[in-house]
Amino acid sequence: MNSPHGVGPTGLWLIGARGSVATTVISGLLALRAGLVEPIGCVTERAPFDVAPLPAWDELVIGGHDIVDTALDKRAEQLSAAGLVPASVLRGIAEGLRVVDSDIRCGYHPTLHTGSQAEAAETLIGDLVSFRERHGLRRVVVVNLASTEPPVPLVAEHQDLAALEQALADPTRTVLPPSSLAAYAALRAGCPYVDFTPSTGITLPALRELADLKGLPYAGRDGKTGETLLRTVLAPMFTARALKVRSWAGTNLLGGGDGATLGDPEFAASKLESKARGLAALLGSDVTAPLHIDNVPDMGDVKTAWDHVSFEGFLGARMTLQFTWTGYDSSLAAPLVLDLARLTSAAHAAGRSGPLGALAFFFKDPLGSDEHRFAEQTRELAHWVDELRVSLTGDADGLPGSATGSANPEAGAQA
Amino acid sequence: MNSPHGVGPTGLWLIGARGSVATTVISGLLALRAGLVEPIGCVTERAPFDVAPLPAWDELVIGGHDIVDTALDKRAEQLSAAGLVPASVLRGIAEGLRVVDSDIRCGYHPTLHTGSQAEAAETLIGDLVSFRERHGLRRVVVVNLASTEPPVPLVAEHQDLAALEQALADPTRTVLPPSSLAAYAALRAGCPYVDFTPSTGITLPALRELADLKGLPYAGRDGKTGETLLRTVLAPMFTARALKVRSWAGTNLLGGGDGATLGDPEFAASKLESKARGLAALLGSDVTAPLHIDNVPDMGDVKTAWDHVSFEGFLGARMTLQFTWTGYDSSLAAPLVLDLARLTSAAHAAGRSGPLGALAFFFKDPLGSDEHRFAEQTRELAHWVDELRVSLTGDADGLPGSATGSANPEAGAQA
Amino acid sequence: MNSPHGVGPTGLWLIGARGSVATTVISGLLALRAGLVEPIGCVTERAPFDVAPLPAWDELVIGGHDIVDTALDKRAEQLSAAGLVPASVLRGIAEGLRVVDSDIRCGYHPTLHTGSQAEAAETLIGDLVSFRERHGLRRVVVVNLASTEPPVPLVAEHQDLAALEQALADPTRTVLPPSSLAAYAALRAGCPYVDFTPSTGITLPALRELADLKGLPYAGRDGKTGETLLRTVLAPMFTARALKVRSWAGTNLLGGGDGATLGDPEFAASKLESKARGLAALLGSDVTAPLHIDNVPDMGDVKTAWDHVSFEGFLGARMTLQFTWTGYDSSLAAPLVLDLARLTSAAHAAGRSGPLGALAFFFKDPLGSDEHRFAEQTRELAHWVDELRVSLTGDADGLPGSATGSANPEAGAQA
Amino acid sequence: MNSPHGVGPTGLWLIGARGSVATTVISGLLALRAGLVEPIGCVTERAPFDVAPLPAWDELVIGGHDIVDTALDKRAEQLSAAGLVPASVLRGIAEGLRVVDSDIRCGYHPTLHTGSQAEAAETLIGDLVSFRERHGLRRVVVVNLASTEPPVPLVAEHQDLAALEQALADPTRTVLPPSSLAAYAALRAGCPYVDFTPSTGITLPALRELADLKGLPYAGRDGKTGETLLRTVLAPMFTARALKVRSWAGTNLLGGGDGATLGDPEFAASKLESKARGLAALLGSDVTAPLHIDNVPDMGDVKTAWDHVSFEGFLGARMTLQFTWTGYDSSLAAPLVLDLARLTSAAHAAGRSGPLGALAFFFKDPLGSDEHRFAEQTRELAHWVDELRVSLTGDADGLPGSATGSANPEAGAQA
Repeated sequence: MNSPHGVGPTGLWLIGARGSVATTVISGLLALRAGLVEPIGCVTERAPFDVAPLPAWDELVIGGHDIVDTALDKRAEQLSAAGLVPASVLRGIAEGLRVVDSDIRCGYHPTLHTGSQAEAAETLIGDLVSFRERHGLRRVVVVNLASTEPPVPLVAEHQDLAALEQALADPTRTVLPPSSLAAYAALRAGCPYVDFTPSTGITLPALRELADLKGLPYAGRDGKTGETLLRTVLAPMFTARALKVRSWAGTNLLGGGDGATLGDPEFAASKLESKARGLAALLGSDVTAPLHIDNVPDMGDVKTAWDHVSFEGFLGARMTLQFTWTGYDSSLAAPLVLDLARLTSAAHAAGRSGPLGALAFFFKDPLGSDEHRFAEQTRELAHWVDELRVSLTGDADGLPGSATGSANPEAGAQA
Repeated sequence: MNSPHGVGPTGLWLIGARGSVATTVISGLLALRAGLVEPIGCVTERAPFDVAPLPAWDELVIGGHDIVDTALDKRAEQLSAAGLVPASVLRGIAEGLRVVDSDIRCGYHPTLHTGSQAEAAETLIGDLVSFRERHGLRRVVVVNLASTEPPVPLVAEHQDLAALEQALADPTRTVLPPSSLAAYAALRAGCPYVDFTPSTGITLPALRELADLKGLPYAGRDGKTGETLLRTVLAPMFTARALKVRSWAGTNLLGGGDGATLGDPEFAASKLESKARGLAALLGSDVTAPLHIDNVPDMGDVKTAWDHVSFEGFLGARMTLQFTWTGYDSSLAAPLVLDLARLTSAAHAAGRSGPLGALAFFFKDPLGSDEHRFAEQTRELAHWVDELRVSLTGDADGLPGSATGSANPEAGAQA
Repeated sequence: MNSPHGVGPTGLWLIGARGSVATTVISGLLALRAGLVEPIGCVTERAPFDVAPLPAWDELVIGGHDIVDTALDKRAEQLSAAGLVPASVLRGIAEGLRVVDSDIRCGYHPTLHTGSQAEAAETLIGDLVSFRERHGLRRVVVVNLASTEPPVPLVAEHQDLAALEQALADPTRTVLPPSSLAAYAALRAGCPYVDFTPSTGITLPALRELADLKGLPYAGRDGKTGETLLRTVLAPMFTARALKVRSWAGTNLLGGGDGATLGDPEFAASKLESKARGLAALLGSDVTAPLHIDNVPDMGDVKTAWDHVSFEGFLGARMTLQFTWTGYDSSLAAPLVLDLARLTSAAHAAGRSGPLGALAFFFKDPLGSDEHRFAEQTRELAHWVDELRVSLTGDADGLPGSATGSANPEAGAQA
Repeated sequence: MNSPHGVGPTGLWLIGARGSVATTVISGLLALRAGLVEPIGCVTERAPFDVAPLPAWDELVIGGHDIVDTALDKRAEQLSAAGLVPASVLRGIAEGLRVVDSDIRCGYHPTLHTGSQAEAAETLIGDLVSFRERHGLRRVVVVNLASTEPPVPLVAEHQDLAALEQALADPTRTVLPPSSLAAYAALRAGCPYVDFTPSTGITLPALRELADLKGLPYAGRDGKTGETLLRTVLAPMFTARALKVRSWAGTNLLGGGDGATLGDPEFAASKLESKARGLAALLGSDVTAPLHIDNVPDMGDVKTAWDHVSFEGFLGARMTLQFTWTGYDSSLAAPLVLDLARLTSAAHAAGRSGPLGALAFFFKDPLGSDEHRFAEQTRELAHWVDELRVSLTGDADGLPGSATGSANPEAGAQA
């Protein structure tokens, strides 16, 4: 339950608003508001975050961009058939889905567009501003949930804002990939930007320059929901115990739209790079680490990761750890998106700007942080939220729950 | 490499000195001294512990008790055939094994003994004192590595030292199990005591009273080397991510002497209790958690654990994590025994007494600590060692490595 | 699709007709008749069995006994919520469920009954005869799907039919467990009996005597749907390749009513015995084979088995195979029950009597067969069905599909 | 123990005679002769094959080609350090290794050779003939164990023997890959040829023409020792039970020379094709089947395969099977090479020619057979060996062991 000093009505604008993760975010928020489900997987609903002044569920208003136009209730039905949204929940949120649907606008894609990217950006900005005004929101957090894009070659215009904007105005050029144009529009509209995908998004220097100029916070990238989550939990154990990891092989099987996209080696490159960076940061680069993502359509939204770790112990003994993680991708991702919307909103309210490194807890490839160890990320997040709380409420002592030093959200038994 | 302010020559007295773990400890220490192997798995050889004033490898002198009399070089050959000690190492330590062998004395077991337990204790104490004097040691750390005993029913004499000593003197009674008689003798001889097994050992109130009386530190119990290590690493992840664990089932297959002992339900009870306590502390008691230990003789010293975790996520989605851990029990345990000898020795040198809760990092069922989360245990250990360093060296600033706040031994890439 | 020479309208009488497996059998049959689902998992729908004169789906009429009275449509809704029956199917079979419901009668249980077991048997017989006449059925196959019972101590009356019937008449005695009383009633009513559970059922000599007397066929026991299926597939591979299996450990996790029953060691004893027999028959008795069944309520109808096989190869190399099987127990069992009803019905029509060893394909602990190797069972089943076909149709050459020597149903790609 | 009607002294000529598999074959044969090990993994040592007139262990004489010149005893020491050859065995076979070493000649590789391939073939043929005469052998079976080659584009000369021989004589051309030149030389020397690798070898039409011309038997290809063995055991189970396999994903981790070769995508192509063919033959082509081979050097000769099978059951329920197979590649392969040498030798003695389809039991991609189901291959092998026995001994009734119908080598408990 959040909270007397709430940061007030907040918009959550989803890029890719009709995708599986976004539909799960929307369905879940509606279900939470209606009391139909427990907030399982929502970090901000439990100690120590529950005393922070974050927007309450009914203070979050959702809109978004997408380039497909299947109605949200249709998408939710598909997810229900796939086992993601219980039938009983579906009935209780039908009306809410139609309301959100009316706030989804057509997004940008180069194959659908004519004219300059600057013109396209103006449309996107207009959608955001109009949404904010229409609902009387203090702020709107833009979260990218669209399909992963392939890596983009850097060009000179990506380095400098002025040069970039000149290129955007040229109707013969497509200087930014969709994720980056979305980030540009968000920043121009005064909105914090969060990238839950490994796409280029806000990572270009010119866009970071724009965020600084506008004093806006941003976060990313690539939500950490499965194999990489486990790797950042397990790798520090080997280091702490002075065991020598020799190889760490991984295979990911997934279906759905994500599987189709990532089954294409060009598109998977972004994701594989993002995954590999974490392991190298944790264990060094002399660990053999083959990694695969396979498109297995029949698995739908279920993703399965198998990892095989070979390590050396005392007197050279060779040992292994294997794990298999099987989960619903959207169910793992959606509550984190709600958490990110709340936390980024509070950061904006508290005047934070630049990359929010303390949100590394949520990401495979964190912007503004070199910390990949999950336990440390957990601890840093707790401290950062406590600072935010003090900034926003002026209450340095905190509420009882946070005064005991159990600032670490891993503490104690699960709710 | 340790260290200018070393705490000086230290004895390491092993109860069960001819067992697999002890033989691996002894073989490994000899191989480390001879530079034949790297100190993989030895936590105290790496940052931030490597700047602490711990006894160097060649300052550790080993002796011990056992009730079997197979020569150590014979035992080491058996371990070599089982793949635990490389043949090349074996050749280099043969002489060293014979030297240690000459410091092993016959241990206590009720089926082998006549007379009162007090008399038996006198013999054990005499062995310890004589060993300490013979080698000119400043201190001797006693570590219990003997076979796991079944749980012992508490009697009134276990609550009070005076009553206990009266019962010990009665030749018709066997009031203490061997592990507790060994702990009694250690304390009476002025030696710190570490229990690497789940046996009763020092946990009886009367023995804790004796430790307090003598101002001695002690630590335990039950070395955390496999399934429980992983559980204390993984369970906090579920809590931190607000995922609801519904069941956590485990099966352990192991052979060797340990397998034979733990395959007996009566003896396994101690181990199962010790394992279960950690999970309940981490996740609460409403998690279904069946747990088995099976004796599979053909696996020898290899132990394999399979765990299956069923958890619930957003919108009630049901997901699973499975892991299989396959390792050499003795290879995992032995370097921790060396670490414990060094750290307990330093604690003794620094005047610490009572249960060393900061050593929870090493144990399934830590004495003096309620902390089961491995990352927190890692952090607490680092702080405690830093305090020890200051106590022993008077150097509050520490060496470069420890000044940066990277007191956490999980930091950075592996060596 | 079956078949011009069909054996005609057949009753399928389920003991435990409101349980999960039975409800899945009933829902599935109704869905198959309505063309709502494909006959996946139904062996008798594919070559070489599809040319045999078996009752068609709309020639099977279902009734049964149960001691609980939850309506079938309610039970089917519960299974739907658990993911076993698709919501779309549920809508299409609602009326059919109510019709079957009207043919379910109250079963026997000693705690619910007064009077002698002979009187109870008369009631059961009456239910069967009345069902057969009401629907004009040529024959009724009784299949036991009730909860597993604990093993029963053998008494003298179990050895001899006359003595048994005398004991049944004694109102102070409970000489038969429910499964065996059900078998007795089935045989007395002239019905073939199939035991899909490991309960005592028809295995008592006195009941086998009765089956012989009545010239009735019977089959069992304990449907082979998961771990044991895999064991009987994999163990012959080790034998064929002359690899020496040293240990084969297994753990089964399951929830639902089955989990609750089998979580009780007394009840699990029947199942564990039945499972162990197969492995010993395949590999000999010197293989270490610890086996567990754990009740994990949150898993519901999902069952997960983990097996770990340790084997020795050339030059003594030690190697392992692990597998994890995760399935819906009722979904695996139900189509086999339909297959057994069809095949046993045809055997009865063809005048077969005694234990149907050729149905070993379906069972963990086959009656009338020592063959546990799955591939051999598959081949024997095919030959037996071909013989049945000839008996019933007089057509020795077979239809095109069976003339080619591809009598083996493993042949060719899957449908 | 084989056998009074033995086919007499037989040569086993290994291409790649200093590789890991070959060294294990040689070490193992020497150890078997010396009675140092049991014949675990040798199919021909057990019923029903043990009554066939195959060459006894001391009737097999080994020689071979290789392009490296590390001495065999050195190679055996390396395998011993890797855990493949016990130290005790190593001591007992040292002299034998030196004797075999003296029969290894330099093999062919285009990068090492000048002159035409015809000249190179002459040298190879000379080596074979001289080996046969030197040892007074009745026949020599050539087995290819060299590193896997990449697939070779077919050219016109591969279709026709005359054209091929013309091309071989042209010093400017390299028309055959090494494996095929080795096959050519074997056939020209009158030797049966077996390919244990997926290289091109004898599969070219021109070489098959030569085998027919010379009336020689041949067999292949690609020894079935791990993942594919399990697939051909498990896939028929799904078919027999009418379960619908939707996807079958696989990952293979291996080190050693094999890992290094197969880690190269070009070289892996041969292996991946060979593996994929079997699954498609068993389950049809609509099964999603991503497959990877990763080079993980630290694993050495140990190979680990993980497979994940997703299948559909009754009422559309989605279920999974996963397995992990961990074994020593050379230990799995070597006994099969000895079996193949014995069986091919007997086939030659009995006048068989052309592809030996009945040896499909041993191969991933069997020549002369479309049968991939392991149980059927087992049965066919048994029948074929029984026919061979009759051909060679004239004894139609067989010895006691084979008269009982237990011709199936899966029968009964393991030795």
